[in-house]
Amino acid sequence: MADEKLTPRSENYSDWYNQVILRADMADYSPVRGCMVIKPYGWTLWENIQHELDRRFKATGHVNAAFPMLIPKSFFEKEKDHVEGFAPELAVVTIGGGQELEEPLVIRPTSETIIGYMFSKWIKSYRDLPLLINQWANVVRWEMRTRLFLRTLEFYWQEGHTAHSSEAEAKEETLRILDLYADFAINEAAVPVIKGIKSESEKFAGAMETYSIEAMMGDTKALQAGTSHHLGQNFAKAFDIKYLDNNNELQYCWTTSWGVSTRFIGAIVMTHGDDNGLMLPPRIAPYQVVIVPIYKNDEERSRVMETVQNVTRQLEAFRVKVDDRTELTPGFKYHEWELRGVPLRLEIGPKDVEKNSVMAARRDMPGKAGKTILSQENLGPQVGALLDTIQAAMLKRATEFRDANIHWANNYDELKQIVENGWAEAWWCGSRECEAKIKEETKATTRCIPLNQENSEHGKCIYCGNDAQQKIYFSKAY
Amino acid sequence: MADEKLTPRSENYSDWYNQVILRADMADYSPVRGCMVIKPYGWTLWENIQHELDRRFKATGHVNAAFPMLIPKSFFEKEKDHVEGFAPELAVVTIGGGQELEEPLVIRPTSETIIGYMFSKWIKSYRDLPLLINQWANVVRWEMRTRLFLRTLEFYWQEGHTAHSSEAEAKEETLRILDLYADFAINEAAVPVIKGIKSESEKFAGAMETYSIEAMMGDTKALQAGTSHHLGQNFAKAFDIKYLDNNNELQYCWTTSWGVSTRFIGAIVMTHGDDNGLMLPPRIAPYQVVIVPIYKNDEERSRVMETVQNVTRQLEAFRVKVDDRTELTPGFKYHEWELRGVPLRLEIGPKDVEKNSVMAARRDMPGKAGKTILSQENLGPQVGALLDTIQAAMLKRATEFRDANIHWANNYDELKQIVENGWAEAWWCGSRECEAKIKEETKATTRCIPLNQENSEHGKCIYCGNDAQQKIYFSKAY
Repeated sequence: MADEKLTPRSENYSDWYNQVILRADMADYSPVRGCMVIKPYGWTLWENIQHELDRRFKATGHVNAAFPMLIPKSFFEKEKDHVEGFAPELAVVTIGGGQELEEPLVIRPTSETIIGYMFSKWIKSYRDLPLLINQWANVVRWEMRTRLFLRTLEFYWQEGHTAHSSEAEAKEETLRILDLYADFAINEAAVPVIKGIKSESEKFAGAMETYSIEAMMGDTKALQAGTSHHLGQNFAKAFDIKYLDNNNELQYCWTTSWGVSTRFIGAIVMTHGDDNGLMLPPRIAPYQVVIVPIYKNDEERSRVMETVQNVTRQLEAFRVKVDDRTELTPGFKYHEWELRGVPLRLEIGPKDVEKNSVMAARRDMPGKAGKTILSQENLGPQVGALLDTIQAAMLKRATEFRDANIHWANNYDELKQIVENGWAEAWWCGSRECEAKIKEETKATTRCIPLNQENSEHGKCIYCGNDAQQKIYFSKAY
Repeated sequence: MADEKLTPRSENYSDWYNQVILRADMADYSPVRGCMVIKPYGWTLWENIQHELDRRFKATGHVNAAFPMLIPKSFFEKEKDHVEGFAPELAVVTIGGGQELEEPLVIRPTSETIIGYMFSKWIKSYRDLPLLINQWANVVRWEMRTRLFLRTLEFYWQEGHTAHSSEAEAKEETLRILDLYADFAINEAAVPVIKGIKSESEKFAGAMETYSIEAMMGDTKALQAGTSHHLGQNFAKAFDIKYLDNNNELQYCWTTSWGVSTRFIGAIVMTHGDDNGLMLPPRIAPYQVVIVPIYKNDEERSRVMETVQNVTRQLEAFRVKVDDRTELTPGFKYHEWELRGVPLRLEIGPKDVEKNSVMAARRDMPGKAGKTILSQENLGPQVGALLDTIQAAMLKRATEFRDANIHWANNYDELKQIVENGWAEAWWCGSRECEAKIKEETKATTRCIPLNQENSEHGKCIYCGNDAQQKIYFSKAY
């Protein structure tokens, strides 16, 4: 498979995407409509993502727990926007142990309702606050059109749920998590996301405010890569989450929720991938280094493999794959590991054994430019430095690509052109009508209102020309 | 809550069990019948269990993946024993996205079927074997009578699924995992399990052979703490899992599956807990050490807390909780952390500040006998050594308890008496009838046929008196 050419991105981006994922052995289709199998290579990437997010959650005082996957259907009806948003997407269990259930159970599409119910049991006084909980879970949303990683009936994510004694503290938490997500995306995945707030029509069903990190894919479309919701007192009122304040008065809590899912893997594929395949950021790549031995006969093989073993021992701090399959040529292996996106390849042949050297080839720089001869002495630090260089170069390239494809729109005609192949930034009056018209006419949706806009600035709405107090991004999106 | 006495184990073991779990803040009941919420303290214990199992799986060449939770109902009908075993326990999704589904989907009670389907797609030749896959997942079995951790509708586990080219290799894998489970149970959880093979009537639905690790709880009942199944070619034939051997001939694979679940937490609670509460083995305890500062006024507090900080810095290699809640007395805190099973408590008061000392109290030895004065100098190694001592003492105590409560039954009357309060070991002819009669008359089930019995030995069946070639354990069980 690895020797067949991928469809070039310029020819059909969507075909390229599916082919890369299948041929890199990240995932496979399953016999269940809209559900995928995440294969070991893809799941290891997810484990590395989990590890990096989880340590950030724990460092900021969050703890993990597990809540039931099955939720009484009536729970969804307690928050009116929530039920409207999720009712069409529910998977419903109606039979258990051979019996029709009295009340159907829903497979969680998200867990605000059941966690809200438990919070109302657990929270008594201000001393119990803030309550900072996360769970790693699978959820099901009945999607009609599905895509590997991007949109599947079942997907995997973390969902954070917190309760606070004041609006200010809940908002602070919402933004702390937004920053945490952006830090993870930029510094671990080399995905240069933009932080902002979603429009009313794009926010989470039941939230007061939704913040997101937005990433630009290789075809310039946007992908929402994580969201953090300030839920106000909506769920506290629906589920009676109250605390006694220090004046001994009952108050409703303020809650938040936030999530990053396996969708993020799609973001990594489409941010970094090229026509040769995946390109994985060293900090979270399942294999950071692949070692390919080169030999022509058994005598060479035995000398080369001895050096490979010595080199591998020096690289114990890294995630290393030694590809010693005897039935395949080195060239075939190069292509395969390029396709699978391993950041650094080390080639070791008889000449390297002689010269005490190793040939290093960077995934992010094809051809000669990306090749360096390393010494076998003190190899660990050299490899570490190269991986850092690759990580930084990937972030730089993706950031430059993003910035080159965001344009200021002075008028609606410009916007229409820009969103054909990029993101448009423009003044927006904030009305649902303008947003809906733009979507209808251009297929571009509002992505987010970037943070830290000067309050004093004003402009005219790109659509209706009325006074506008905020700039927003428009683009086509996944 | 922590100052209320627990029901003593001797009075009502089952009440004691539920109280310990709820009051130690391990878990809570949920509004969904038979489903529990695993709270952060319980989930952290599970994460530590996961970590120890997962590194053993990876060290033996297994990789993690994720398969859909929803399985077409027809898949269950392909292996006749499997469907018989699981049909009564299925939760069935009949509605998705507001529409009745053409084919109902079952929430996995276990994943042999869907993984078998995928294996048949992935395996082409002997080069693809062995295929060694594990997944960490939630599963649902519609149980009628549920107990926290021991038996819940939804539970969490790992399920390993492997495919091999020969019967011998599959059997070797089954036993490798059994050893791995026993090693984990004994050396991490200090649960002295016995390895053995299940009887025909107790084996997994669809397996050729089921091996298990069996643990003795504090009330002498048995708990099956992990199982490893040699599936023969049953699932390979049902799902057409075939490979081309090196003679280019198509052969069916031999498969295995194996699992340990959150049930294991129940095993830990009931192996080690005493009338004061939980007792957690240091190697997997969420907190290995709790530090309780002692002071009478603010001046003392500030001196003590300085020492606490210095001590904490020295213990960075351990999982340490500093309980600096000002509204509670040290005595209250001692009781609470005893209840929650923290292996080692460090008390630091003004005298310790003066004398450069720390008072250490072992959870496994109540009163003065478990107290040692440590020096603040070089505290890390002292604490490390104490935790090792506690871990070893817990295993020793549990092993002695187990061995004191297993008795050889010379005749059926003896067996009946023994299983009232212990495990009976006895000759068994292997017939389902004898096993069923014993169960009916004594409520004791066969636990396992311990491994490594002398082939030459013979005896007379404890029930029918016919020739018996194997010894087996009988006991009441969870």
